[in-house]
Parts: sequence; structure tokens; C-alpha cells
Amino acid sequence: MMRMPFTKAEYLERLSKVKASMSEKGIDVLLITDPANMNYVIGYDAWSFYVHQIVVVTLDDEMPRFIGRYMDAFCGAVKTTYLEKDHVHAYSDDHVQSTIKHPMDYMAKVLTELGYDKKRIGVEMDAYWFTAMAYERLKVGLPNAQFVNAHNLVNWVKIIKSDAEIELMRKAGKIVDLAMKAGIDALDVGVRQCDVAAAILHAQTVGTPEFGGDYIAIEPLMPAGETAGAPHLTWDDSRYTTGTTMYIEIAGAYKRYHCPMCRTISLGETSKQVEDVAKITVEGLNAALETVKPGVTCEEVEAAWRNVLSKYGYAKESRIGYSTGLNYPPDWGEHTASLRPGDKTVLQPNMTFHCIPGMYFDDFGVSISQCIRVTENGHEEFAKYPKELVIK
Amino acid sequence: MMRMPFTKAEYLERLSKVKASMSEKGIDVLLITDPANMNYVIGYDAWSFYVHQIVVVTLDDEMPRFIGRYMDAFCGAVKTTYLEKDHVHAYSDDHVQSTIKHPMDYMAKVLTELGYDKKRIGVEMDAYWFTAMAYERLKVGLPNAQFVNAHNLVNWVKIIKSDAEIELMRKAGKIVDLAMKAGIDALDVGVRQCDVAAAILHAQTVGTPEFGGDYIAIEPLMPAGETAGAPHLTWDDSRYTTGTTMYIEIAGAYKRYHCPMCRTISLGETSKQVEDVAKITVEGLNAALETVKPGVTCEEVEAAWRNVLSKYGYAKESRIGYSTGLNYPPDWGEHTASLRPGDKTVLQPNMTFHCIPGMYFDDFGVSISQCIRVTENGHEEFAKYPKELVIK
Repeated sequence: MMRMPFTKAEYLERLSKVKASMSEKGIDVLLITDPANMNYVIGYDAWSFYVHQIVVVTLDDEMPRFIGRYMDAFCGAVKTTYLEKDHVHAYSDDHVQSTIKHPMDYMAKVLTELGYDKKRIGVEMDAYWFTAMAYERLKVGLPNAQFVNAHNLVNWVKIIKSDAEIELMRKAGKIVDLAMKAGIDALDVGVRQCDVAAAILHAQTVGTPEFGGDYIAIEPLMPAGETAGAPHLTWDDSRYTTGTTMYIEIAGAYKRYHCPMCRTISLGETSKQVEDVAKITVEGLNAALETVKPGVTCEEVEAAWRNVLSKYGYAKESRIGYSTGLNYPPDWGEHTASLRPGDKTVLQPNMTFHCIPGMYFDDFGVSISQCIRVTENGHEEFAKYPKELVIK
Repeated sequence: MMRMPFTKAEYLERLSKVKASMSEKGIDVLLITDPANMNYVIGYDAWSFYVHQIVVVTLDDEMPRFIGRYMDAFCGAVKTTYLEKDHVHAYSDDHVQSTIKHPMDYMAKVLTELGYDKKRIGVEMDAYWFTAMAYERLKVGLPNAQFVNAHNLVNWVKIIKSDAEIELMRKAGKIVDLAMKAGIDALDVGVRQCDVAAAILHAQTVGTPEFGGDYIAIEPLMPAGETAGAPHLTWDDSRYTTGTTMYIEIAGAYKRYHCPMCRTISLGETSKQVEDVAKITVEGLNAALETVKPGVTCEEVEAAWRNVLSKYGYAKESRIGYSTGLNYPPDWGEHTASLRPGDKTVLQPNMTFHCIPGMYFDDFGVSISQCIRVTENGHEEFAKYPKELVIK
């Protein structure tokens, strides 16, 4: 019962791009620890990344390998991906969160047995799941290997989506429209924050009658009132009061592909400042999106936003967007191109970005965003929810 | 608007225990990267752990420091914790997921300015958020420091809960009872997996009329049918069929404190083997729980389970439980004591465990669990949902 959302041919196509990048960087063996990258090359999808596991891609073998915990390897990787059983390796459970045995010791042993112990081995140095200890143990277990920083190698391959991936993101776009509507419908003075979050989570997961939603790489972010300038707060069980300005940053996800969205909502009356900042934000967002087309750089997109801002006497320090798509907690961003000064990544068709110019002040915040695809001559918006301040 | 769920006195009490452990290990400066540990010592709670951030605890300063991204530091850490503004440091946004600047370079600079650059610095070597690159950059930025592995130092302090923490876990227990009921109520032949997940997520988040639920460190795990032996699969949008055996592993959470629970459900008829394994599982679980009291070791608890299993001719490789409580994705386990052979941790009052003896076979799985507190002379069960196979 394979559960992969793409054809095996598509996975092999991805692998050939990953291997081309490995060759270019002189990497013989790539150890993938980021679960999104593992999913990208073998279709493995499980909440098992809380223990150490890797996918091994080598230049001399068409089929990658999975090395993980016993209970995830044989019932999980073998049954749900295209890997043959002899390409799946499992460590025993006494390696899990143990102070005595480390899973990377086992992985080094497997790599040695396969003859990869003297190779140039690429590792994802800044991936969440590649801990300092994992690297230390690997270096001890493979003293003759040469380690190369292959952080974001797979991420840069996956920055251009296939048409099949774009289809999943369109579905995610339909889900986020429904989830944002569910959240804003539930929101009112006197309602608890947790009840709005529950409405959002329910809508994200039910999806549509035709296709259901997946879990999201980031929980609903819902900063409100005087902490609305802190964009990464979630919710509690307090009740909304009249005059609160808040925003909701969520995504829809379908088979791990995300379409994020942020909207700002004022409950009842709002200040002229909030209304003005919201108008400028939307004008700047649209100006940025209108510059999007193949050949333009990321920093040029940001400059269009910045020009609108400076016209009104505002400035904003942080980036206004990033590549998005296939991901796992804790981030739906792909950690490659960012829409900010200095980022000279050239836009190409089927790159996908979450453009989120958030204006965070000491005592309020306004954020209105759009997730888009770069098309042959412009951009496609995945979601349809109106880009405006919501007053309720 | 501080959002901390405990008194400042409780945080200071925790800090004094952390510092005692630092002293014992010869650590002058502790860099905390695990968001649960950050929350534990300063009460910081935000979904900002997808970028590098640390809490610094030193022996020579009563107040810890937060070093993080600008947008999380001043509106987030300053407004929501007890830290004074001069103990909060922020790096600029161009450090975020950049190939040029690394946040740890900034952190090394701050530590140097504070005079900590020649100290013995403890780092959480195997924490998810302490990447290989973070460690490399720290070593470059602090060439005269001595680094000490302080992995799980805070985790071992927090293994014994305060009465105030236990109160939060009791609330989480009430929430998980409701969430499990919501999931099992929604479950039926012909229902989509995503619709059951949505019912669970909604109930987890709404909580009760008196207190709302928080998000959970692990998404609902719902392996079903022939992949039910792979315990970390989530859901898709396929429909359940008659005769499916599955389990639901979820938690309730209140202010980041978790009470996990797993139940096995058969839709319609089930095999004698599933029924037998379920009975043995419950008998073994109860035998393990009945041994729990102060003075007993973790491996003795597991042995009670193992004795029941062997009586029926079964064996199970993996651990049957672990310490749980305050946590963030991707794991509600605390990575300290495990209920398994060789773990000689001695139980003490207010330790809390998720006892989950999962029986995973090639083509089915049975798992029935209980989250408990060690009391003065036995154990307290946080949740009330009947410990039995559910046939629906």
C-alpha cells in the first residue's frame, strides 16, 4: 500500500536533479535528515522525525536508502514508499533517546558496511534534525570520511515545482480559503481565542468534500491586542474584547504541500492608523506581486514593496516573503530564496512564494499576505480570500 | 501583559535547581535551545523556534537572558515573560535563513560582550534546535570557551513536577478524554480519516467550557489497517472500511503541558488475535502501573509488563513508556527516563509518565496507554477513558 502522491518517475526525476547537484559539489553520498527532503526524494511521510533517521542518496545506486527506528522502517518506509526492503535499515529501540547508544553510531556502521566510509559525505549542517551530537557521532563513526556542508542542497532543487506539485498547492489554496473563512466567522467579541483556533484547525483538516486537509507545519498564529506586534504567538483561552486588532496566519495543506495566508482583523472600531497601515500594506503587497515574473530577482520584488512604503514614510526591517511548498513542522518556509535586499535569486516559472509583508509595531501589527506561483509571464495566486483589512 | 502560567517564585525555584546542576557539572553558562526548556525557565511561549534563539542561564546573574530574532524579542519575550528589557537581545532579520549571516555569530558576540567568552559553556548537544551548524559557528565565535555537553540538563530537573504543574496536567487529562471521545464518536465505516482527525483537533483545542486546549506536540497518529504496525503515520482522506483495526494516539494539552493517550479501535468484526492481544496489553499495562511507586526503578515497571507478555508467549522490543509533560513539537516525551530494561531511574513523587505498551505486528497493531503521576505510595491516572479495545 504505497501512499506516495506522485509517480515513481517523478521521484526518479527529482533524484536525478539532486544527484546532478551532488556531482557538481563533489559529494558522493548525501545524508538527508530534513523530513521534507526525505519525503521529496522517497515519498516517506510519517511523524517519526522526533527520532534520528536519514535517507541516503549515493551517486552509485539508483535507489536511496532509509535508515531509521525499527518500528518506522519496515512497516513504515517499506510499506509506504517505493524502496525495496534491502534498502531499508533499522536500529533497535534501545538507541531511542538513550544516554548509552546513539542512532548515528548505527548509521555510521551501515555506511561503513556499504563501503561509503571513505567517501565525501554531504550533510545538512543547519537542518533542525541534524543536531550537533548527530554530527559528532558521525565523525567518530566515520573517521576516514570527508564531510561537506550540503545544507539546503535538496531545498534548492525543490524550489522549482513540477506541475503535479503545483496541483497540490492549488488544493492547499482552496483549503486555506475555507480555513480563514472559518476562523473569521468564528471570531467575535466575547469569543475565546481557543474556539477560533479550533474552528480553523477543523476546517484545515476537513478540507473539501473532494479532498481532505493535511496537518500544517505551523499552528495557527493569532497574536492579538497589545502583543499583536509579536507575530509568533499562538492562542490561549482568553476572550476577545471590542477594539482588538489581531491577525491570523495559517495555511492550508494537502499531502504536505502548503498554501499560507495571513489576514488582519479589527473587532469593532479601529484606529485610523491601523486602517492606513492596512491600506499601505495591501498597496505594497500588490506592487510587489505585480513585479513577479521570470527573470526578475527576489530583491527587485522586495524593492517594489519598499518603494510604496517609503512613499508613505514607513520602513520595515524584515524580509517580506520566502519560498514555500512541501514541509513539516516547525516551518512551511523552504529556507532558500527570501524576498529581501541582497537576495539575487532569479525568479523562474513554478517557483512558489509566500509574500507576507508584516508591519509589526510596538503595540499593534498588520499583516496581509498572498501565496503565489511564478508563471510564464507573471504570477498566479493560489488563494482567493480578499486582500484587505477585515472589520468585524 | 505577562502570559506565564506560574508565579515568578516558581520560575526562580526552577532556576536554582538548574544552577545547582550546572555547578555540579562545572558549567558557568548554559545555552538553552529546546523551546520546552526555555519555557520552563523563563515562561517564553511562541512558535519562534523555527529560527535560532537561545536562553542563557549563568551562575553569576539571577536573571536569564533571551537572544532571538528581533520580532520575537521585544514584543515577544519582553512583553510575555519576566525578563527585563536589558536581558533581551535581538539579531536583525537578515540573519534569518541566510547563507551569509548566521544567528549564532550574533549570539557569540553578545556572550563575548558580556564577558562569557572564556567560560565553560553548556550546550544541549542533541536538542532538535541545536544544529551541527549552530555548534560550529559558536565554536568559531567563542574560540576561548570550553564547551560541555549539557544535553538534557534542564530535562532532568523538570522530570519532577511541582504541584502547580500537576494541576495543568490534570486539565490536559480532562481534555484528552474529550478528544478521544470525539474521535471515536466520529469514527465509522465510510468516514474519511481526515474527518476523524478534524473532530479530534477541534476537541483538543476547544477543551472544556472552563479552560481551553493548547496545541499538541504531536499531531494525531492514526495508523489503520495494513499499515497499523507503523505507529507514526498520521491521516489521509481515504475512507475506513469494515473490519479495520486502528489506533488513535493523541494528547490533551493545557498551557503546553500534555497528557497523552492511545486507544485501539476495531470497526465491526475483529479477529480473535486482535482481541487476545488487546486483553494481554491491558493486563500488562495494569501490571506495570500497579508496580509504580516511589523507590521502584523504571526497568522494574517494564519487567512487570514483560512478565505478563511472556506468560502468553509474546515479546516486545521497544520501550513501554517515557517521562512526559511540558513540550513542543515534535515530541511530548521529555527524553529522560524510559520504561525499559537497563533504565535504573528511581521513581519519585510527581514524576509523570506516558505508559504506552504498543504491540506492533507486520499487519496490525494494538496500543492502549495511560498517562500517570507517581504519588506518595502508588500512581494517579490523569485520564479516565476506559483502558480496553473499542469495538465499533
